[in-house]
Amino acid sequence: MLSETTKIPKYYQISQQIIDMIRTGKLKPGMRTPSENEIMREYNVSNTTARRSLQEIEAAGWGTRIKGKGTFVRQRNIQRSATRILGFTRNMIEAGYTPSTRVLDTRKVAEGYSCSINGRRYVMPGPVYKIHRLRFADDIPMMIEVRYISLEFCPGIEKQDFTGSLYDIYEKHYGLQLIEIHQMLSTVMIDAGTERFFDVHHPIPAFRVEGVTFCGKEMILEMEDSIYRGDKYRFSVRAT
Amino acid sequence: MLSETTKIPKYYQISQQIIDMIRTGKLKPGMRTPSENEIMREYNVSNTTARRSLQEIEAAGWGTRIKGKGTFVRQRNIQRSATRILGFTRNMIEAGYTPSTRVLDTRKVAEGYSCSINGRRYVMPGPVYKIHRLRFADDIPMMIEVRYISLEFCPGIEKQDFTGSLYDIYEKHYGLQLIEIHQMLSTVMIDAGTERFFDVHHPIPAFRVEGVTFCGKEMILEMEDSIYRGDKYRFSVRAT
Repeated sequence: MLSETTKIPKYYQISQQIIDMIRTGKLKPGMRTPSENEIMREYNVSNTTARRSLQEIEAAGWGTRIKGKGTFVRQRNIQRSATRILGFTRNMIEAGYTPSTRVLDTRKVAEGYSCSINGRRYVMPGPVYKIHRLRFADDIPMMIEVRYISLEFCPGIEKQDFTGSLYDIYEKHYGLQLIEIHQMLSTVMIDAGTERFFDVHHPIPAFRVEGVTFCGKEMILEMEDSIYRGDKYRFSVRAT
Repeated sequence: MLSETTKIPKYYQISQQIIDMIRTGKLKPGMRTPSENEIMREYNVSNTTARRSLQEIEAAGWGTRIKGKGTFVRQRNIQRSATRILGFTRNMIEAGYTPSTRVLDTRKVAEGYSCSINGRRYVMPGPVYKIHRLRFADDIPMMIEVRYISLEFCPGIEKQDFTGSLYDIYEKHYGLQLIEIHQMLSTVMIDAGTERFFDVHHPIPAFRVEGVTFCGKEMILEMEDSIYRGDKYRFSVRAT
């Protein structure tokens, strides 16, 4: 059923209803979405509207149109902007998923942490707080992360709740502003050691993301070493 | 031997000599570089200079220091900035490699080309010129690319020599300026279909890069669909 009272265009309402069918699993990856003709009949709309709704589904990344065959549901895939400071939680909410988190381990690391990123060595003197978490979108494990947090900038962070956004804690609890993140993307295989977390039973490629986050000039707030599933993620970038 | 007449610091000269040994294969991945003591003796320098030269090797991405064990040669790895417009040729030269190219196929595609990148659909009306190339660094196959070039902006490009930089052709021959590139990075496996190009004999993860390059507002100059070896490449990004 389409709403007549809102100002949301019909083609967009239709596309959202079909995307909802994909999100809830009624339509699965590889299946055909309703065709132009089926949409025209079911929603009582013109072929232009039907076609635009299919174009919208494809543009939003949920389907692929194959000439003369129809629109097919794509593998669920999260797009992550690599040039925008954006936490997992907000990225998932913006993509229409419900994020959740399982904390695997937390501990104080006396000796600190250091890492080479993009040819420069970054050092966080100890103690730092290490948080190891598995993060989900609609109960699907999406990425596994290790974060090393400055106890200088976040004293007492061990008392916080880590099932939500760390960025929220930095910003709301400590009043810190994230000003820049340098990241290095490489590829790894999800293998025997990590397969169990992701519930996959054959090796799949993944992104490894090593990063350093600043809350001021030369002020390292945290460092990250995470694995993003390659079958679920893609990164967008813009070069100028 | 260190030069006394130049103003290049000694630690840097030493680091460059050791990096040259890595580049020429005298030192191979996994091998230990000369130690601090060996550098002190061989070059007759202080331990501070010796240590700085090893730090420089590590910072440049050629080695990894392991506490109490020494500095070890890393896998050769190219860093590619994802936020800078930079062709393969220049990227390789800046990294100290000699680039070369094998043209696998060229053809005119009457129907044009289109692709969804970062949730938006980009269309190049036909005819476009398709170039399929394999690109090398010091004779190691690094990436395989398919480029779709606008014949509107580059009429007669089929007469050019494609063993070098296409960016050079765009800029020098056609006077075009590349103003922006939108790219989408995903992961794929290099499998039976592509293994033969890369001379690898087991599946390895790789980056797939789909991109669209503009030479003016809404003016699509070319689109790309390429595979960058995951064991040779990493991408650097900066989020603000």
